[in-house]
Amino acid sequence: MISRYDKKEISEIWTEENKFKTYLEVELAILKSLEGNRVPVGTSEEIRKLAKIDVNRITEIEKETRHDIIAFCSSITENLDPKIGKFFHFGVTSSDIIDSALTLQIKQSLERILPSFKKLLASLSSKAKETKDLPTIGRSHGMYAEPMSFGQKILGHYAEFSRRYLELLDYYNDELRVQFSGAVGNYTILTPELEEVAANALGLKPEEHSTQVIPRDRIAKLISIFSLTASAIERISVEIRHLHRSDVAELFEGFAKGQKGSSTMPHKKNPISGENLTGMARMLRSHMSVALDNIVLWHERDISHSSTERMYLPDAFGILLYSLDRLSSTVENLVINDDVISNRVFENCTYLSSYYLHHLIEKTNFKRDDLYSLVQQASFEASKTQSAEVFHQALQTLLESKQTKLELPIPTRDEIKNIFLKSTDKVFERVEKSYPHGKEL
Amino acid sequence: MISRYDKKEISEIWTEENKFKTYLEVELAILKSLEGNRVPVGTSEEIRKLAKIDVNRITEIEKETRHDIIAFCSSITENLDPKIGKFFHFGVTSSDIIDSALTLQIKQSLERILPSFKKLLASLSSKAKETKDLPTIGRSHGMYAEPMSFGQKILGHYAEFSRRYLELLDYYNDELRVQFSGAVGNYTILTPELEEVAANALGLKPEEHSTQVIPRDRIAKLISIFSLTASAIERISVEIRHLHRSDVAELFEGFAKGQKGSSTMPHKKNPISGENLTGMARMLRSHMSVALDNIVLWHERDISHSSTERMYLPDAFGILLYSLDRLSSTVENLVINDDVISNRVFENCTYLSSYYLHHLIEKTNFKRDDLYSLVQQASFEASKTQSAEVFHQALQTLLESKQTKLELPIPTRDEIKNIFLKSTDKVFERVEKSYPHGKEL
Amino acid sequence: MISRYDKKEISEIWTEENKFKTYLEVELAILKSLEGNRVPVGTSEEIRKLAKIDVNRITEIEKETRHDIIAFCSSITENLDPKIGKFFHFGVTSSDIIDSALTLQIKQSLERILPSFKKLLASLSSKAKETKDLPTIGRSHGMYAEPMSFGQKILGHYAEFSRRYLELLDYYNDELRVQFSGAVGNYTILTPELEEVAANALGLKPEEHSTQVIPRDRIAKLISIFSLTASAIERISVEIRHLHRSDVAELFEGFAKGQKGSSTMPHKKNPISGENLTGMARMLRSHMSVALDNIVLWHERDISHSSTERMYLPDAFGILLYSLDRLSSTVENLVINDDVISNRVFENCTYLSSYYLHHLIEKTNFKRDDLYSLVQQASFEASKTQSAEVFHQALQTLLESKQTKLELPIPTRDEIKNIFLKSTDKVFERVEKSYPHGKEL
Amino acid sequence: MISRYDKKEISEIWTEENKFKTYLEVELAILKSLEGNRVPVGTSEEIRKLAKIDVNRITEIEKETRHDIIAFCSSITENLDPKIGKFFHFGVTSSDIIDSALTLQIKQSLERILPSFKKLLASLSSKAKETKDLPTIGRSHGMYAEPMSFGQKILGHYAEFSRRYLELLDYYNDELRVQFSGAVGNYTILTPELEEVAANALGLKPEEHSTQVIPRDRIAKLISIFSLTASAIERISVEIRHLHRSDVAELFEGFAKGQKGSSTMPHKKNPISGENLTGMARMLRSHMSVALDNIVLWHERDISHSSTERMYLPDAFGILLYSLDRLSSTVENLVINDDVISNRVFENCTYLSSYYLHHLIEKTNFKRDDLYSLVQQASFEASKTQSAEVFHQALQTLLESKQTKLELPIPTRDEIKNIFLKSTDKVFERVEKSYPHGKEL
Repeated sequence: MISRYDKKEISEIWTEENKFKTYLEVELAILKSLEGNRVPVGTSEEIRKLAKIDVNRITEIEKETRHDIIAFCSSITENLDPKIGKFFHFGVTSSDIIDSALTLQIKQSLERILPSFKKLLASLSSKAKETKDLPTIGRSHGMYAEPMSFGQKILGHYAEFSRRYLELLDYYNDELRVQFSGAVGNYTILTPELEEVAANALGLKPEEHSTQVIPRDRIAKLISIFSLTASAIERISVEIRHLHRSDVAELFEGFAKGQKGSSTMPHKKNPISGENLTGMARMLRSHMSVALDNIVLWHERDISHSSTERMYLPDAFGILLYSLDRLSSTVENLVINDDVISNRVFENCTYLSSYYLHHLIEKTNFKRDDLYSLVQQASFEASKTQSAEVFHQALQTLLESKQTKLELPIPTRDEIKNIFLKSTDKVFERVEKSYPHGKEL
Repeated sequence: MISRYDKKEISEIWTEENKFKTYLEVELAILKSLEGNRVPVGTSEEIRKLAKIDVNRITEIEKETRHDIIAFCSSITENLDPKIGKFFHFGVTSSDIIDSALTLQIKQSLERILPSFKKLLASLSSKAKETKDLPTIGRSHGMYAEPMSFGQKILGHYAEFSRRYLELLDYYNDELRVQFSGAVGNYTILTPELEEVAANALGLKPEEHSTQVIPRDRIAKLISIFSLTASAIERISVEIRHLHRSDVAELFEGFAKGQKGSSTMPHKKNPISGENLTGMARMLRSHMSVALDNIVLWHERDISHSSTERMYLPDAFGILLYSLDRLSSTVENLVINDDVISNRVFENCTYLSSYYLHHLIEKTNFKRDDLYSLVQQASFEASKTQSAEVFHQALQTLLESKQTKLELPIPTRDEIKNIFLKSTDKVFERVEKSYPHGKEL
Repeated sequence: MISRYDKKEISEIWTEENKFKTYLEVELAILKSLEGNRVPVGTSEEIRKLAKIDVNRITEIEKETRHDIIAFCSSITENLDPKIGKFFHFGVTSSDIIDSALTLQIKQSLERILPSFKKLLASLSSKAKETKDLPTIGRSHGMYAEPMSFGQKILGHYAEFSRRYLELLDYYNDELRVQFSGAVGNYTILTPELEEVAANALGLKPEEHSTQVIPRDRIAKLISIFSLTASAIERISVEIRHLHRSDVAELFEGFAKGQKGSSTMPHKKNPISGENLTGMARMLRSHMSVALDNIVLWHERDISHSSTERMYLPDAFGILLYSLDRLSSTVENLVINDDVISNRVFENCTYLSSYYLHHLIEKTNFKRDDLYSLVQQASFEASKTQSAEVFHQALQTLLESKQTKLELPIPTRDEIKNIFLKSTDKVFERVEKSYPHGKEL
Repeated sequence: MISRYDKKEISEIWTEENKFKTYLEVELAILKSLEGNRVPVGTSEEIRKLAKIDVNRITEIEKETRHDIIAFCSSITENLDPKIGKFFHFGVTSSDIIDSALTLQIKQSLERILPSFKKLLASLSSKAKETKDLPTIGRSHGMYAEPMSFGQKILGHYAEFSRRYLELLDYYNDELRVQFSGAVGNYTILTPELEEVAANALGLKPEEHSTQVIPRDRIAKLISIFSLTASAIERISVEIRHLHRSDVAELFEGFAKGQKGSSTMPHKKNPISGENLTGMARMLRSHMSVALDNIVLWHERDISHSSTERMYLPDAFGILLYSLDRLSSTVENLVINDDVISNRVFENCTYLSSYYLHHLIEKTNFKRDDLYSLVQQASFEASKTQSAEVFHQALQTLLESKQTKLELPIPTRDEIKNIFLKSTDKVFERVEKSYPHGKEL
């Protein structure tokens, strides 16, 4: 990850140093499981005391062996008494270590991601509640449709992110697996029972069926959740960018003191977080194709996945954490222009067409198609001035031309809120019930 | 879907005819929920009796209105008494109908997909059991690694497909949603309570938070399961294609009587199912990017998703069903060349190196690195003739040069099976416990 | 392709009927090239006279042979005198026919695509010229930046589409290849010289190096041009959708008489073409991953590409033609609201900040950073009322507080056009020189 | 880029240090173009003498301004006399600098890539020539098809990479563009003529039509060439991995002294370069979707592309250079097992079926279908023993059963080469003519 977007909490998990530390934990867990069986009791404790992670030394050895696990093992054992050292890496294949360690790194990374996810949910939830009673013009096709609650808009994003959060939580609880099944998953030296013991020691479950590797659909599943999350990030970012445009001006991203918008145009404040996050979403989604391709390994495994995972996995976690945190703070700092938003509602009126249409359906016996035409005509008339009175008048005139006289209300501001926001509370209630805010790990 | 790969069970769900039939079901469920409220009791039954789906007429009207729901409604109501007809489509927006109907079509499609998925699981499970005791050479990097159970190979695919099946089942049970929330999800005419009633009548749950549409992460989630399934299909297809090559010849796809392999090379039998399915997997995965992009609709919705869903959704279901069925029958009809497979195991020996290595670790006190070099040297020696005796002899000579004398076994065929397949049963047991064969809907 | 978006000009090229007709052309070209050599002179003419394409008969035979080329050949030859018939398909392998015929179908499809592409370029060019002198507010980050020519906006799309058109033209002229190289590209029966003769007869060049197939990077290259075109289509569609929103209202898609915007909201006119084309672009881009995967065939070929090409190639051409034609007519029918557009320019003023900044740089000797702050402050002041006078006054006051007195102009409408559109003509000239409108095939 | 795969030649181009150095070059070129016009002659030379790139200082300023170009400019000018310093960045917008500098970095990167590409072409060409006369069994569907030249196999990869090389060369010569068009491409201060002068000074062409940015189809086009190259890399890597498998053993990747294949299986040598490159290809292709999405910027630009380009562009160049270099050396060091390869040809015979089929077509007057069946039957007979004599005998017997007696040759080894490799030289000649080895920049 380039330093500009680096999240230390993630990148420190994916250093060579931490990788080898994790390797060591895994090796010792296996060794321990073998003690009393084919390995003398106490061996793992003994090695734990003496072992030192020395990345430079490992790199040096790897230059010759071109095999990083062998280099790692040699670096640990070269100074040990062979009587003990010879048991290090006993009965396992490299991938048992690499893949189980990878799972531990993924676990550590998820433990950084999930709290930030919860924080985002809290930001969304609180911003939604804050603006629950603010009427805004809902838009379909980018066109003014009907008034609705501004908070309900944000609530939809809360619901979407909640689905992703729950998926990630399930993943964390069920899909993190280790394997100690030997060369091609055939347990030549170890056994499924010993595998279980070592897995438990690491706080994880063994993969039910591993080959030489943990099957890559596990990782692809994770990345598919990330991809869906990326689109959730982009959806709210695009919403912010839309509402932020000069033409709309319904909100602004908080603008820090001293911040400058343009090198040549001093008047500009730009939705740079929304745009940045849109880009982040693109990057995050780009990993999906790699993860799906990585599933299709040859026979019991090939290592075509390996180089890609070294590169994209740390980036995926890093970009995700960066995005969640940036989105949280963007949501928290949004400057919502209540007046612009509600005036846009009250200074419009053509959205009354649906309201009038249903009124006419109930009160007259014309064909719906005819009523539709009537209302459409009146609303086109009214659209020039956006005057509810004009709308009302035009409709009356048209009705009269059909020999119909009808009491038609012109709703007040309060009535408008009542008509169009009447179910908002119920929707909030329902969403909060389905997505209790921030389930624990 | 082109006719060559068409699955009628799917394509008949996605005809215009069935789409409009589903629209009608949805409209009537809503209407029924409104009866006694703003609509006279009995209206929906009355319309049900008189309504006819006439695709040609709809098409004709749509040419003018350029709006398919309006055309559909007009076609239903144009011959009804306006007193009744005017209530048709009361209180809903087009998307309430379109999206809820889409969910019903997805439901119908999944009800075709899931049984085929179960059938595939049964085929894999039974082929895995059949070949459980057949020793085969496991391969990593395409290179001979160690012997293992042939059935366990297939079992790994069973486990992977089981994960997808369970995800699809969960999706079927939890994520199929309808919405009747009006123009921009603001329930101007309907209410969340009425929505619930209408949803129940259709046997489905309402979306907790809809805008003008059901949020597209629902569909993208489904397509992400399809994508993972696609890679599972490709993984086993590639396995079959590898084992089928002339160089390997461990199995063949069943070759029908009269089938011809090449227009110019009469001697060829090709793994055409494996190759075809590899292609199908590519197509299936290609929908992922579309589904992810479709999430990011503007504000309360735009219709950029609509054209794509008309095209790719029927194809996605069709290709998936085609692939599952073809894969089932391919697996069932595989001709497994037991002799070729087991002879390849018994006529090799270098895989004993790991076995000998661990033997030496236990029986001597040399450094592991030194023992590794010793065994590597002996195995390179043996690799020319693949004679276990040569391997044994070379190793003895090397040990003697180190002043070490050791009893080293030369395992018999039975002992080889015992060493390398000893945990197979346990792995089968574990997989079957985790993935009980074919959970019900 | 589903009938809703079907373009007959394309789909008729990709029928079974036309495919087999093309096969026949290819077979006869080869046969002709062999005459006088290993085949009697006149054989191809003789067969041409007697051969009939009978799709049903071919399908019938294929059910047995499971090989479509063999079925095709049998259907042609079964009623011929064996003395002649035996030479049909002499010396070639199926792929020689299939791939060369595919190239011919691609050629025919491009011959439908290119004129529509030219028409789009003409529409863009003429709309750009029409609106060249219309000042509009340029936007960066969705925020008002500086005035510019509206026509120049459209000209940028013209330039982008021109790049794609030229690439497609180059492709058409250079990259359409046939092959008659036999089983694995080894010319067992035919020769490179005969291949050249047959290729010339079909009006095409032979592939320099074919295996059993024409290398799939040829097709992937084409699809990469399509993908870039898709993004060009989406870019202009998004522009239209933005300018169309109720908040902006600078243009509308032409609205046909009788067209309805919403089933429940009679007041709406929606940018449905822009949205539809955005979706089309997503579909078109989705083929890229398939085409790239198809390159990686095993050894001299496998047929994993085949099923995908049957599905996605006709769709790719169909969607592209549909999109080009729809975009042309959308551009032609755009209703441009000149007043809204130019008033937005003249009723704003903060964009003068850059103009003033450069003025101050020239006329004073303050640090640029200080001047920037000054102008930013004044522009924030002016942004509330959008009054140029306020901006001017605020800036004067700030300058005075720095003991500086300066003549600062307040530009008139004409001067604004002069400042911000002064290079428009030159840009048009340059683009037209680089992309001469509609180069011929 | 992670250090494991880092190519210094690329990463040093993409450091912050070099980026700012490039910014400076661009700023000075513009300044120079303005001299004598609105800027005093000599200003750019003066600033060049005094300007220092201080990354730390820039970072410090950016923390406040949150705008990297403004920070960069301040760092350059803060110590200059305002009389000169105020002209720095005169008349341009940030993107003029950023995008033009980006083009220069791309240019520098391509200047590292192209020579490595040429080297790869040389490696492929020379390996192809070396093995031109070696007969190998061609495979289709992974099944033995017919003999062919081993060198011709490699030549196909040479041809494919040559197409990419030529595209990249064209790109380098035509598509590297700079822009100095101001805020929204409206040349408020600068002019197209001055842009040309500054562009020439940098050795590049101006973009015909820029908005606030150089249109992103330029970069997407480059990435599409990279994607096609990625698939070329994967295709040859897969070929190597196939031929390397234990079951085939026709070649090996060179195995360095001391290199170890497996931590637990001392006997293994793995095709790790082929596998690594397969992974690299996946990464490289993953950028395509990002580059295509980046084209669709809003109006005159948004910065959603920016974060992605900071991340993926250096990676794209780095991965490509790494891959080209590693592939070159892999090809050069391939150990080709001539004996295994040619024996596989000579110890098989069923491929004679096509040869016999055409012989019979010429010498008898049976229907082709009947002859095909005959030869197929005989070839199935022969396939058990792979004896040409058996084939010959079986065919004779079958012919006799049809009252036909025919002289049928049994080709010798030399004749086999003659039949199946007779056009190899011609194919080499043709490819070399079309793709002259290593055209210059």
